[in-house]
Amino acid sequence: MKSPAPRPDDRAVPPQRLTIKDIAARAGVSIGSVSYALNGRPGVSEATRLRVLTVAEELGWVPDNAARRLAGAQTDTVGLVLPQGTAKSLGVAPWFMEFIGGVATVLAEAGYGMMMQVVAGLDAELDVYRKWSRGRLVDGVILVDLRADDPRIEAVRTLGLPAVVAGPPEVADGLTCVWTNDGAAAQEAVRYLAALGHRDIARVSGPADIVHVKIRQRATEETAAELGLRIRTWHTDYSVESGRRATREILLSTPRPTAILYDDDLGAVTGLAVARELNFRVPEDVSLLAWDDSNLCQTTFPPLSAMSHDVLGYGAHLTRRLLEVLAGAPPASHEDVTPRITPRASTAPPS
Amino acid sequence: MKSPAPRPDDRAVPPQRLTIKDIAARAGVSIGSVSYALNGRPGVSEATRLRVLTVAEELGWVPDNAARRLAGAQTDTVGLVLPQGTAKSLGVAPWFMEFIGGVATVLAEAGYGMMMQVVAGLDAELDVYRKWSRGRLVDGVILVDLRADDPRIEAVRTLGLPAVVAGPPEVADGLTCVWTNDGAAAQEAVRYLAALGHRDIARVSGPADIVHVKIRQRATEETAAELGLRIRTWHTDYSVESGRRATREILLSTPRPTAILYDDDLGAVTGLAVARELNFRVPEDVSLLAWDDSNLCQTTFPPLSAMSHDVLGYGAHLTRRLLEVLAGAPPASHEDVTPRITPRASTAPPS
Repeated sequence: MKSPAPRPDDRAVPPQRLTIKDIAARAGVSIGSVSYALNGRPGVSEATRLRVLTVAEELGWVPDNAARRLAGAQTDTVGLVLPQGTAKSLGVAPWFMEFIGGVATVLAEAGYGMMMQVVAGLDAELDVYRKWSRGRLVDGVILVDLRADDPRIEAVRTLGLPAVVAGPPEVADGLTCVWTNDGAAAQEAVRYLAALGHRDIARVSGPADIVHVKIRQRATEETAAELGLRIRTWHTDYSVESGRRATREILLSTPRPTAILYDDDLGAVTGLAVARELNFRVPEDVSLLAWDDSNLCQTTFPPLSAMSHDVLGYGAHLTRRLLEVLAGAPPASHEDVTPRITPRASTAPPS
Repeated sequence: MKSPAPRPDDRAVPPQRLTIKDIAARAGVSIGSVSYALNGRPGVSEATRLRVLTVAEELGWVPDNAARRLAGAQTDTVGLVLPQGTAKSLGVAPWFMEFIGGVATVLAEAGYGMMMQVVAGLDAELDVYRKWSRGRLVDGVILVDLRADDPRIEAVRTLGLPAVVAGPPEVADGLTCVWTNDGAAAQEAVRYLAALGHRDIARVSGPADIVHVKIRQRATEETAAELGLRIRTWHTDYSVESGRRATREILLSTPRPTAILYDDDLGAVTGLAVARELNFRVPEDVSLLAWDDSNLCQTTFPPLSAMSHDVLGYGAHLTRRLLEVLAGAPPASHEDVTPRITPRASTAPPS
């Protein structure tokens, strides 16, 4: 991490404290061996490890980590707060889970742990950052699902808590961010459906105040206007039930749109089931286009066409940038790969 | 947590250390207000909070947490290790994600954090427990996906790391465990399919050395033998591709089983798509029965019959037991709710 300014309380750790040198001397092994043994790393025999641990125990050795933490040094831990809604629907939120998978994988490779906490709302989330910062429990945090004028940005800045934002520079407000060009992707999605011959398109999207929802909506509407298409948006809270309701309304509306563009993959999977329930054929009667393309899109028949985004790779990319920030890199904006269309069998010309 | 034996190095924290009393005196507020302000809790005005934080900063106050940690006190953090395979397929592993959701929710309510780490294999996992224990990074851990004679049991015991096992007492070997009666549930599943008239049943299951896979397999086979049914098992690694292959083999085998019992829900969802692809009608040509019943089972058409288990509730239950262990409760075995059949539209008598 950025090396913190020395704090007066560094003196709280007495200079004559027991060090691994003392342990090495008493155990009759090298300092390196002591370090390996105490940190649970390979490089020493089990016998040596045991001897070192026994001596450390006898001498009352304090783990390095706690001492370093007291001195304000790094924790080798990164924090991620999840909104409670996410936790309740975790089993069916492929995006979040692939993202966490990418984060956790890079952290593990770097020898970092990941601290996760579920919160009921924004105030609780801000409390967590305060707690993490005061308790020096994490070196930095990842901020996701940003809203317009998100107070979390200001909060982590005030706390001096290093952070990386999963979102565009407009919302990151000078913090390091990693983002995908959702506008360009939404444009491609609409152009693809238009090229197939669709003139009346429905969009099933998330809560209107989430930044990426807004960005996609604007790009979708602009592109539709440019191409002379009709476009209507249904907002959901990303739950299975609200997604099902949206697709049902769309399929029963007059005139009936011939294509539906979803904002996630769970919505599209659910939409496919609703189409079958109402006896609409996919893609003959209605084309469905998913977004983010988790494996879920390939568990259906027909498999779902999707705007593909390597979410695991995105989580990994963002985490590498956070590690750079922790190492002292200045704030920067990093563009991740733009989602691209992966046509499968759920999209076709309208019949 | 269990209050640890005093360690000689407790003396490393000088008794004359700055306390919140000093901060209260200097800031001219009560000790309670200082505690609220420093811990980011409600109960003080923003002005007071700011004054306290400023004074604390001036005096070089060391956050309580780090000091308590150095003294060997609790970390208010629980650790959970995820196998790497899980991370890669996180987006499509509803069980794991609902489980984590339950764990995280209870921890948040109790003011605990959750430390997660992804590992490539068993050795790496054991290293993580060593690191967490030595560095006093967690108060306790949750062990999942136990294998027969699992070395993790011995490892956490040797480290003195409090743990709760997600599995039956046979594998927990004296540690506190929370388990579901998978044998009884498997028996119910087979009896249900038999009652519908199925005589030839296929089972799509996970890796053969996972404890719950074994338990279900034995119960399934015993019940089938009792009822004079034919039962055959296909093992997968829980990936979408291996699940698809298993269902394809089953549907193309001669004689063709008339019902398939899955070990998870993703497998059943994928199986439904394979049936449609191969032009088998569900449930007329083949009945499908899922296990664990995440929301995913209701995103399909027909919606999937399932052995329902409240996985979020299970994660929550287990976490409450871990908090009891950390508070000093003796080891105990706790049975969670037994999964029960939820019939939907994917099961029917064979035609």
